[in-house]
Amino acid sequence: MFPAISADKEQELIESLNHYCLANSIIIYPPNFQNYQPVNAPVTLFPTPISRGAFKQGEEVQTIFNELYARIVLEEEWLVKIIEELAGFDRDFTGKLYETYLKAKEIGIVQPLGLGIFRSDYMVNKTDNQIKQIEFNTVSVSFGGLSTKVGQLHKFLNDAGYYSNESKLFYKDEDLVVSDSIVKLAQGLYDGNFYYNKGTDNKKTIILVIVQENERNVFDQRLLEFELISKYGIKSKRVTMSDIHTKTFKKDNILYLKESNEEISVVYFRSGYSPNDFKSDKDWENRLFLETSYAIKAPNLLTQLSGAKKIQQILTNETILKEFLKDDEKISKLTKTFVKIYPLDGSELGKQAIRYAFEQPDKFVLKPQREGGGNNIYKSDIPNFLNSLPKDEWNGYILMELIYPEIVHNKIIRNDQVFNEPIISELGIFGTILFDSSTKQIITNNLSGSLLRSKFETSNEGGVAAGFGCVDSVVLC
Amino acid sequence: MFPAISADKEQELIESLNHYCLANSIIIYPPNFQNYQPVNAPVTLFPTPISRGAFKQGEEVQTIFNELYARIVLEEEWLVKIIEELAGFDRDFTGKLYETYLKAKEIGIVQPLGLGIFRSDYMVNKTDNQIKQIEFNTVSVSFGGLSTKVGQLHKFLNDAGYYSNESKLFYKDEDLVVSDSIVKLAQGLYDGNFYYNKGTDNKKTIILVIVQENERNVFDQRLLEFELISKYGIKSKRVTMSDIHTKTFKKDNILYLKESNEEISVVYFRSGYSPNDFKSDKDWENRLFLETSYAIKAPNLLTQLSGAKKIQQILTNETILKEFLKDDEKISKLTKTFVKIYPLDGSELGKQAIRYAFEQPDKFVLKPQREGGGNNIYKSDIPNFLNSLPKDEWNGYILMELIYPEIVHNKIIRNDQVFNEPIISELGIFGTILFDSSTKQIITNNLSGSLLRSKFETSNEGGVAAGFGCVDSVVLC
Repeated sequence: MFPAISADKEQELIESLNHYCLANSIIIYPPNFQNYQPVNAPVTLFPTPISRGAFKQGEEVQTIFNELYARIVLEEEWLVKIIEELAGFDRDFTGKLYETYLKAKEIGIVQPLGLGIFRSDYMVNKTDNQIKQIEFNTVSVSFGGLSTKVGQLHKFLNDAGYYSNESKLFYKDEDLVVSDSIVKLAQGLYDGNFYYNKGTDNKKTIILVIVQENERNVFDQRLLEFELISKYGIKSKRVTMSDIHTKTFKKDNILYLKESNEEISVVYFRSGYSPNDFKSDKDWENRLFLETSYAIKAPNLLTQLSGAKKIQQILTNETILKEFLKDDEKISKLTKTFVKIYPLDGSELGKQAIRYAFEQPDKFVLKPQREGGGNNIYKSDIPNFLNSLPKDEWNGYILMELIYPEIVHNKIIRNDQVFNEPIISELGIFGTILFDSSTKQIITNNLSGSLLRSKFETSNEGGVAAGFGCVDSVVLC
Repeated sequence: MFPAISADKEQELIESLNHYCLANSIIIYPPNFQNYQPVNAPVTLFPTPISRGAFKQGEEVQTIFNELYARIVLEEEWLVKIIEELAGFDRDFTGKLYETYLKAKEIGIVQPLGLGIFRSDYMVNKTDNQIKQIEFNTVSVSFGGLSTKVGQLHKFLNDAGYYSNESKLFYKDEDLVVSDSIVKLAQGLYDGNFYYNKGTDNKKTIILVIVQENERNVFDQRLLEFELISKYGIKSKRVTMSDIHTKTFKKDNILYLKESNEEISVVYFRSGYSPNDFKSDKDWENRLFLETSYAIKAPNLLTQLSGAKKIQQILTNETILKEFLKDDEKISKLTKTFVKIYPLDGSELGKQAIRYAFEQPDKFVLKPQREGGGNNIYKSDIPNFLNSLPKDEWNGYILMELIYPEIVHNKIIRNDQVFNEPIISELGIFGTILFDSSTKQIITNNLSGSLLRSKFETSNEGGVAAGFGCVDSVVLC
């Protein structure tokens, strides 16, 4: 499953891995960085085996998931009703997003086109090798850039003989997955630009990338920007949420960059997915300013809100799924990727869930509405946590069956250190979709590459930037 | 000549330059580095204008220079006579190289093929826009990797609108030179592998790269290695001079890598060009061990020695040139690139040179045989320096007319700092040539891209790694 190589060879392998990473943008800024000094992004030494069937399954369902979430957004009334309730449980963020959406509606939402740049995350269930969905991400999905590069890294190390004491190939080339996410995600943004311009190839309109200040994962983003300019001749401009009112303006709802008077076709959010990204009321005003512009938002507020955990839970109900996807085969493919997810409300199902949470907590993870790692409650921590909350707040959480993935013995390289601990992996599949709320039509719908992230089996959270996990690549088995 | 941009725009430009550099291997290790943490290589903010005619002139003469130096090496007796004398003036290095060559002759030099990977360096004379040769490098020529990338950097910054307040193109795309040196130098190594294998495309033989310990400019080298494996499927192995006897062995003169028993087709030296690269007698034995192997050396000892300053001086004599190149047109093209270079010996020319050195030193630079920056004596320092030497050592130096290049106001970026001082630039043209000493035939002869390095006008030396200069690119004017 993994190469057995001598200590000497491993040292040479690690040196070559470092060189390749640094020379090929597999880098990240360390905390408190200087602009000119990055470090290697944490990566695995070897690609991690994922069953061919599971990987294919993930690829197959992606355009169905893209469609499902687009349909939900197009079914505005239904979605808004759920979000409205949810807003009460997470006033600081879901609530603010929803409020901003309501204000935008009042002012007028002028752009009917919506662009989804999505990533569906799975673990592979070890008993049956089926993928099980962890979450569906609808905003600021990351690592599409680094993923391609790490696939190339592992391919290089294999080709160059570093995975074998005798300098031979260890993996078959066709088993190594090199994600085409750089190409495909850039193409998604290109599609946005193309349809903003009524189906013409306009290189004068630009992409506005909303970024966090002091972003450490900037190279992952830049890889898409480099692809956009080199392949399509489309420029991009990076601004923070708080710079929007000083750096852009609107005229007849059309969004422009002040410094150059360039028209903005797509606003691509790599920020705005957490309350920390809004430091003041002005930032929320800026978000509203963008939402009511004619630029296509990737994503718009409703699309972002459709990624709520609560929605994910509701969609495990097949009857509801059928309202959005008419095709039984599609529905069956999706439901195979679902684990049980329960509400913690007054319904029969909710009551059952509350019993589970207290009686068999070891089978579950409790997830709040809030995005991002670090907020989940695992297993035996669940009862005490729930008891510490007022009961009327329980409905802000969902209870999700744990997935049991294969535990493997890959190695993680971080800052030249080799960590040799059992790891588990999370497979992400990217997708892009462009849809029109005026005609309720889907215009483009694409599978856009993959991502494998791995983390120590002992760590419950897997954020790569936070230092708990790393970027990996898939070797099919 | 250079874009005039606002302070805001310049800040954005520098941030984008940093990001692009770091994501595209325009990096170098800082002193006392950690393997996982490089810094931006110093680069210019803008490409530097070079006259189209001068650039073309450099390209045109490269294959002629390649041929000239190959012919010199093939004219072994002639070359050896000069080197023998020279060896006396630089016993520690030229002397040791020569001694090693003599030992190799005694043991037997079995590989008739020689591979030259050369770089001819020029400045453009400002009065007539003609290139004037500074030196011809026959060993361990560097920056072919970074040069391609810096050309791409400046093209990216132009394409993406960073060179204009209005986000417009500042340069015409066709004026920006992106050196194809990565592709072409790797092709030179490929050619070596191909002809080692009697004109067959053997991917099983490998390239041995002789490197310095703690090389800071490793990414420049790795870019060629990555190209070799990805384009040709040819592996390379990095070893230091002192590791050769533990990591390689010979059988019937054929050189093999111990760990994998792989046959080595080409030994590519990115070390061994200075006495510091030989730390012990064992290192010299290792150099001899390689020279007497069947692998093609890039370069072999005679080829390396042909790069002596003394040879460069001798070749300014047209009568001697004619012995190596029969074609008057070729000779005329070369001589146009020469400045006056004088010996400091007992000849009539030498006596004249000694008068110049003391009477008009401001027109000259005094160069010792020794390679590498930092050893040259400039202008008014020359008389005192010569007086401090025994007269019989003067012949170890050459006296070279200074070249007066255009001084321009580009900016140099190093570690996020902007240096805004007058700079001068040095144009390097790469070439590769494969020749056969048994048939005296030249097998391949190619122009292999270009390099522009710039330095503060006030600094006499221009080593990029040493921190005095930086990698630039050419915009034709």
